[in-house]
Amino acid sequence: MIMASIKKRTENALKLCGGADKDYTKQVVKTAKALLKMDNVLILSHRSPDGDTLGCAFALCRGMRSLCKKVTVRCADEIPGKYAFMSEGMEDQSFEPEHFVTVDIAGPHLLGSLAEEYEKKIEVCIDHHLRNNVEAPVKFVDTKAAATAEIIWLLLCAMGVEMDKGIASCLFAAISTDTGCFKYGSVTPRTHLIAVELMKYGVDCAGINFKLLDEVSQAQLELKKQALDTLEYCCDNQCAIVTVTTEMIEQTNASPEDLDGISNIPRSIAGVECGITMRQISDGWKISIRSSDKLNASDLCGKFGGGGHKAAAGCKFTESYEDAKKQLVTAVSEMLK
Amino acid sequence: MIMASIKKRTENALKLCGGADKDYTKQVVKTAKALLKMDNVLILSHRSPDGDTLGCAFALCRGMRSLCKKVTVRCADEIPGKYAFMSEGMEDQSFEPEHFVTVDIAGPHLLGSLAEEYEKKIEVCIDHHLRNNVEAPVKFVDTKAAATAEIIWLLLCAMGVEMDKGIASCLFAAISTDTGCFKYGSVTPRTHLIAVELMKYGVDCAGINFKLLDEVSQAQLELKKQALDTLEYCCDNQCAIVTVTTEMIEQTNASPEDLDGISNIPRSIAGVECGITMRQISDGWKISIRSSDKLNASDLCGKFGGGGHKAAAGCKFTESYEDAKKQLVTAVSEMLK
Repeated sequence: MIMASIKKRTENALKLCGGADKDYTKQVVKTAKALLKMDNVLILSHRSPDGDTLGCAFALCRGMRSLCKKVTVRCADEIPGKYAFMSEGMEDQSFEPEHFVTVDIAGPHLLGSLAEEYEKKIEVCIDHHLRNNVEAPVKFVDTKAAATAEIIWLLLCAMGVEMDKGIASCLFAAISTDTGCFKYGSVTPRTHLIAVELMKYGVDCAGINFKLLDEVSQAQLELKKQALDTLEYCCDNQCAIVTVTTEMIEQTNASPEDLDGISNIPRSIAGVECGITMRQISDGWKISIRSSDKLNASDLCGKFGGGGHKAAAGCKFTESYEDAKKQLVTAVSEMLK
Repeated sequence: MIMASIKKRTENALKLCGGADKDYTKQVVKTAKALLKMDNVLILSHRSPDGDTLGCAFALCRGMRSLCKKVTVRCADEIPGKYAFMSEGMEDQSFEPEHFVTVDIAGPHLLGSLAEEYEKKIEVCIDHHLRNNVEAPVKFVDTKAAATAEIIWLLLCAMGVEMDKGIASCLFAAISTDTGCFKYGSVTPRTHLIAVELMKYGVDCAGINFKLLDEVSQAQLELKKQALDTLEYCCDNQCAIVTVTTEMIEQTNASPEDLDGISNIPRSIAGVECGITMRQISDGWKISIRSSDKLNASDLCGKFGGGGHKAAAGCKFTESYEDAKKQLVTAVSEMLK
């Protein structure tokens, strides 16, 4: 009887967002069932938390609490202030966690300092990353989801959670931040259709978008300005490089969050196929690559022991600034030939 | 018989994007009927053309040509290169225009240098701006549309135009640029639902979004950097001011397009309720105001003979830079009390 209604609710939710095949429906039902069986649940977000991992965690926490379960969210790192609205009214409950769920976590190392304590205990893993190596009895990894929040929305529907403004706001924020506000190639009709469903609950979409995507701190803007001062072009203007030194970070009083967005600048310049951001770290230089279809960023970083995606990847150099840059530019120049 | 099918198609289209009342349905039918009756049509876009006016014009042009009508688009100002894909394969046809349609034009003055020639000839006016004072026998102004392209989509459906990638790309680009990629408060469920319909035709959404929203020219980035160097705060950091001089524009070789985006910078700083951009013009200073709910930008600009919207407005000063700034800051300071 209960199973039947989970299946019905899943089918209804899938119909609202474009439909799915039988296997997918089964996966939603199985995961929703596993979550419904749990009580005293700890939901884990990834280290250096972003809008998707936090939005998923607090939406699921809110949803499961509405079903009278004891649930709490944990994350290895501090939650940036701009996401505070997600946890409003979700004070920690005192209980001994018995069940463990990860959201938007591609591998145990992304639990950060919580890895040792929890990596062997994960029961349900919900994610959308390509290479997910979390070990868990129930894994629901949908790489076609633009944000893990799309999957959480389906699961909450399947579980029979009554949607409200709080849950919808968490999910909308998660989708908006992970897609650059519906901007990236990962966005599908389903992404838009779920947004439409969430908007029915009075979400302040424009407010959330401004706060999470457009608003910058004074320090962030100052750091951006200083970074722009270092902009240089090479490879016939097809490659642009921006540098961020520890001195700049200290001088502007910038936080790790304030570095967001800088690595997108060089690639956004018309004609630039490869954008390089070189950020000084304690033992060398952390490199972020953003590229067009003309250059595979993952291949480029692979040459230096790094990796990532086709259009966004990273690597590290322990060499001097000039040495690191020379090696990078030589490799880019070769690849652009 | 034809009328019946227009009505049916309109109802189907409206059902796809959230429904509408009888009056609205009637308006769509009436406008579609007027367009269907025409041949040898000139579609007019507004001066300093943006993605919405051009996307609407070329989508309508493509759609009407697919119904074997002679149609051409005109605009007083040059079409920026980034919109070139819209007019691809839409070479001018040689014919004497007999019917005139405006898209996304709120008033005859927005025809620019074409006003004198056409302002008395407009037969169909399709728009979404609040105060529309175009005179035309058929006016369809829907201020709830986030982009005029939403209305054009409805009209093309009502007219029985077969959607294709070319039309869908124009309409998607129009919606995306006019909403900051689904970011602003003007976005409704209908906006997302129309995007879903357009995505069915293989639109390169992410490519269009990058090209039209993220890509910057070298000159634009250089100008932004120089503008950031002028950033100053006042009114307890609740007001931020950025200045763009003609010298900067000349030195960076920036075009009018390159000024896009700069006026959003000061307001985007956390804690800033009023962002001011002062741009030098031949006879003084052009002021752009962006504000939060705490300050009405239109009221502020109204004090100096300007106007606009609650959150975005403008005015002009013929006084010196220091005088203009002093008057503005005094007014902002009063209003923030």
